[in-house]
Amino acid sequence: MPVIEGRSWLEIVSPPECDRLLREQRVGRIALVVGAHAEIFPLNYAVSDRGDVVFRTDPGTKLDMLKDPITIGFEIDGVDADNRSGWSVLVVGEARRVREPDELARLKELPLEPWAAGEKANYVRLRPGKVTGRRIHHGTRTS
Amino acid sequence: MPVIEGRSWLEIVSPPECDRLLREQRVGRIALVVGAHAEIFPLNYAVSDRGDVVFRTDPGTKLDMLKDPITIGFEIDGVDADNRSGWSVLVVGEARRVREPDELARLKELPLEPWAAGEKANYVRLRPGKVTGRRIHHGTRTS
Repeated sequence: MPVIEGRSWLEIVSPPECDRLLREQRVGRIALVVGAHAEIFPLNYAVSDRGDVVFRTDPGTKLDMLKDPITIGFEIDGVDADNRSGWSVLVVGEARRVREPDELARLKELPLEPWAAGEKANYVRLRPGKVTGRRIHHGTRTS
Repeated sequence: MPVIEGRSWLEIVSPPECDRLLREQRVGRIALVVGAHAEIFPLNYAVSDRGDVVFRTDPGTKLDMLKDPITIGFEIDGVDADNRSGWSVLVVGEARRVREPDELARLKELPLEPWAAGEKANYVRLRPGKVTGRRIHHGTRTS
């Protein structure tokens, strides 16, 4: 396994493995820049046949209010605190609200149920530009 | 329970409950602004006796390279995908690397073991400025 910056306990997760993890998981988190810092919001998502990360938003929420396409970060992870190990995948790419009827119809076929009451009528798709994954595993402490 | 923006399935998590969750969990995620977007990195953390979120970093990593105190977002969550419910707590505040020997000695008493080999010699503390929590629960779909 390739390692990161010479740190043997930190492995790179390969692109096919990142893709598999993205299709397997159902919950991720987006980071939205607010002024000079960023805030993190969990949400459920699905991956489209074109490999986009797709999620639904309610009118009036932060992400929905973005009129133009923007670059955002999206993360999934799986952490085992007891075994002090875990992995994470970070997707950076352009997110935009989908308005084209054809594309919208396709996205509505995805297994993307909102978790609670409320329309969540708007679909946002994030086209992955950069996808990186890392896995940490419990090694021997040197200090 | 107070609700958010009239959405009855989205409850506000009270400040004492946010505090309890922060002290109970061990893994969170920070959002770092990179250019015009933000990226998310999971890490393990502890809460100090002063209520700061404390974590360790390796020299050369993104966060360690920040020389001056900066405002960052930090998030924890607990999601039950099968039951389509979950909660999240977002902390926004000033993060800075701790260099003062007295404070460093105090932080080294925290249960903040690195998960793997490597020194992670640097301590960063995030002083919570704004702490917000929300809980979503599975309601009846209206659409």
